[in-house]
Parts: sequence; C-alpha cells; structure tokens
Amino acid sequence: MRRVAIIGLGLIGGSIGLALKRTGPRETELVGYVRSPEAADKALRLAVVDRVEDDLRVAVDKADIVILATPVMAIKEILAQIGPHLPSGCVVTDTASTKAKVMQWAEEYLPPTVDFIGGHPMAGKEFSGIEAAEADLFEGCIYCLVPGQNSSSASIQRIVDLVCELGANHLLITASEHDNSVAGISHLPLILSSALVTTTTDSPSWSKVSKLAATGYRDLTRLASQHPRMNRDICTTNRENIIAWIDEFIKELSRFRQLIADDSEEEIEQAFIQARQARQRWVDEHAKTD
Amino acid sequence: MRRVAIIGLGLIGGSIGLALKRTGPRETELVGYVRSPEAADKALRLAVVDRVEDDLRVAVDKADIVILATPVMAIKEILAQIGPHLPSGCVVTDTASTKAKVMQWAEEYLPPTVDFIGGHPMAGKEFSGIEAAEADLFEGCIYCLVPGQNSSSASIQRIVDLVCELGANHLLITASEHDNSVAGISHLPLILSSALVTTTTDSPSWSKVSKLAATGYRDLTRLASQHPRMNRDICTTNRENIIAWIDEFIKELSRFRQLIADDSEEEIEQAFIQARQARQRWVDEHAKTD
Repeated sequence: MRRVAIIGLGLIGGSIGLALKRTGPRETELVGYVRSPEAADKALRLAVVDRVEDDLRVAVDKADIVILATPVMAIKEILAQIGPHLPSGCVVTDTASTKAKVMQWAEEYLPPTVDFIGGHPMAGKEFSGIEAAEADLFEGCIYCLVPGQNSSSASIQRIVDLVCELGANHLLITASEHDNSVAGISHLPLILSSALVTTTTDSPSWSKVSKLAATGYRDLTRLASQHPRMNRDICTTNRENIIAWIDEFIKELSRFRQLIADDSEEEIEQAFIQARQARQRWVDEHAKTD
Repeated sequence: MRRVAIIGLGLIGGSIGLALKRTGPRETELVGYVRSPEAADKALRLAVVDRVEDDLRVAVDKADIVILATPVMAIKEILAQIGPHLPSGCVVTDTASTKAKVMQWAEEYLPPTVDFIGGHPMAGKEFSGIEAAEADLFEGCIYCLVPGQNSSSASIQRIVDLVCELGANHLLITASEHDNSVAGISHLPLILSSALVTTTTDSPSWSKVSKLAATGYRDLTRLASQHPRMNRDICTTNRENIIAWIDEFIKELSRFRQLIADDSEEEIEQAFIQARQARQRWVDEHAKTD
C-alpha cells in the first residue's frame, strides 16, 4: 500500500488528488492535510482524497510521497515542521511556481534520510480553490522536476512515475534555469496582465472605455485574476529574474513606441510580422491548441 | 429591394455578409467587391454575398448601404473612387479599428448627398480572411457608431437597424472618444502582446524557455497573431492615443517593478488585489464570459 500525503488541497492539490484517484493504482492511500473543518468537509465531499488530517505530523505519518501544494511562502514553515517526522526513505515534492528558494529550504530543513525533488506543473487557471480542481488539469502539460543535490535516482524515478500518473510530461531542469524561464513566460505575463488592468481601470475615462473592452482585453487581463497571495509569493521568491525580464520588456515596448512615434510604417509592420511569425513557430512546436 | 454593397470580403466583410443573409430580410441583395478572381470564387462558394463585382463603380451602383470592410489605410482611396458614383441618399459606413482619420476622409471625399456613419464592431479574432468568417461573429458585441457632422437621423437609423440585424448592440460615440478608448483596451493590449513575443523569443535562452510556455503565455500573446498590416494601420492612424497609453502603461509597470525591487510584500499583494478586483468588476459588468 503506497501512501501519498497532499499538504494543501486547493486547485493544484485537489487536482492531484482527483488525478491520482482516477489513474493511480488502487493500492494508493491518499491523505490530505487542510487546516479548517470546512475545507476538510469539502475535500471529502468532492472525494479528492481518502482521508483528511488537520495535524501535519499525522498527515505525513508513514507516507511514501509527500506533496506540498501550498503557496510558496508556506513551504518553508511546513518543511521545518514535518522534517523531524518524515519516515526514512520518503520522497518530498512541491508544486510551487518558483524553485530556487524551495530547494534551499528543503536542503536546510529536511533530514538526509529524505529526498526532495522540486516540482512545478506548467498548468493552472485563473480560478483557485478546491472547487476549481479537475482530474485532467495536468493532462499533456509540462511538469518541471528539480532533483535535490543528493537525490537518489530511485527517488527521482518515484516522482517521475507520479507525474506520469497525473498525465503530464516531466522535464528535468535546474532551479535557476527554471526560475529564469518562468519569469519570462509566466511571471512577466502575470505582471503585464495586472498592470494593464490597473492602467486602464485607473484612467479617468474608464467608465466610457470599459464598455468597449471585448475579448482581446478579456484574454490579456485573465492572469490578473490569479490569486494575489500566490502572485506576491512569486514576486518575492523570484525577484531578480522578474526584474530582469521587466527591464527587457520595457526596452522592447519602448522600441515599439519609438517606431510608432516616428510613424515608420514599414518598420512598424516589420515588428508585427516578426512577432506574429515568432509566435506561430512557438504554436507549431509547443502549444497544445490555439 | 434593398441593396447592400460590402467592399472587402475578409473576416469582417465576410461575417457581415453571412450575418445579413441569416437574419436580414429577404428583400436584401448583397453585392460584394473583391479584386481577385480567386477571392470572388471563394466568396460565392462560401455564399457570403449574392453577387460579386471587381469594379468599385459597379459594386456601389444603386446601393442603399455601402459597407467598407477593408484595412483602414485602403479606405481613403476607396472613398475617393466611389464618391462621385454613389447614388443620392445612400449611406456609407465602415468597420475600421480607428475612426478620426476615416471621418475626416469621408468629410473630404463624399458628396453632400451621401451620409457617412463610421462603424466599429468590437469583435474579431486573431485569424483573418474570408475562411474565418462566421455568421455570429457580432452576436452580442458592442458596435460603435460615429455619425458624421451632418448625418440625418434617418441615415443613423438605417445603420442602427443594420447593426441590430448583425446581432450586435450599437453604441453612439464620438470619433475622439472612440479612438482614445480603443487605444487603451485594444491597441495597447495588441502592442503588449507583440512586445511580449519579441522580448521572449529574442532571448538567448528561448530554446529552453519555450518548452515551459503554457496557456498563460498562449493567451497573453494571442493578439500578436493578428494581421500585421492591420496592426500597422492601427498604429499609424491612432498614433497620439496609443503613445499616451503606452506611456501610462510604462509608468504603471515601473511601479510594479519598484515594489518588487523593494520587496514590499504588503504593497505587492495590494497591487495584485487591486488589479484582480478591478478586473472582476469589469467582468461582472461587461464581459460576456470569462
């Protein structure tokens, strides 16, 4: 009997539970940790886990795999709390959006008898909470895995298999490569999306402007509806990378601005052609649908 | 028998044709103007109009309504060409993304016997061309109408009725209000989307980064796949408004950057909360779906 403990049952933790229940072997017991009785009731009602615990120590008892699916800033504290109680040979993983800090905390708080493999599923949506959980949230998505310095290949394999059960494709990557990459394709877009909302809605003409906003505006601002605390944690744990990408972006946006100010028709068209073609190459190679 | 001439049968012109065929009275004859024989064949095969002409003068002959559905930069030339041949009492409208220039050209090139009502459906998608045309493209969307200085109320009503046949909701607005509004909620997002693509794909680490890009990146970059020539025309006909919005956006993005650089956790979270709430208010009030 394999025991998997999921710490935190929101969108990601809940979806992992549902996915493992669907595709995992019957020999798995899923234990969920949530603090409030209401959240526990909900988790059992939605059947995302087999059993719910409100005590971290009990939740990880005899676990083969522990999955931390909480906001990134909670991970440090949880690692410190569960560290002394983890069974020897247990493998711990997480689902946080940034990896360098998490790897550092794991190094610091987990005993040498336990391996930590950082994880980050490149899936999600703007809604949060267990009600938004779906069994196929990870279907076909890239799932980054960052092995710890001393992780054994057996431990890595255990998490690779877990990712496979979730329907995702694992990608082994270093923490620094991961954090730089997601700063560009995930955190920068989040900040652009949020800044677009505040720029437009703060405008004195917004009451008129808002009526005209349609699907383009809706799509470009969707990420601004993500959970603010998660966004904050992303910013505080990936500061340097995010700032570097914002600076690159402002340079590029200023180039567009200059072309428009100069009324350089050909160069403006060229800039849009370049963007369109580059996006098409990415869509052809990587995007699931458009 | 009402005769409606559609000049240009791309995504918008084609969709207008399909929508009028579906919901319009049977007493309407739809005439389409396209230049190439291939485009004419396609238009007839897809049945977006009843008849196709490759001569502008013939296309607008005896027309009650003329709809210009070409890229904005082509409108000036077409107005100059059709001006002398328009039947007295005919009403001309367009579908271009910017209105100030178009209204100015109409004033200049149309005879006093013809009214011009500028139009702009707040609908579209990133695919262009007649193959992408859909009868319900305008269903429930806002359709801006900008009456000319001397437009009669009967002419305005004729175009209001047309918009109603398309399934859209008309909004009477001035050209300058329109152009400033769309610069914020449509042109700025387009440029952000394009600049995000070029910033990321030009990065030396793109081959690695690209693998991790998922749905968030896909949504944020979707507008970059719009037609480059249309984008260019938008920029050249709405320069001042777009630049003003880019400047406002850079200010706001720099504020986010500063909060992140300062590691001001509370203020970062507050900025994201503000963005999320403001977007939710817009979604509740205006967005069709999310």
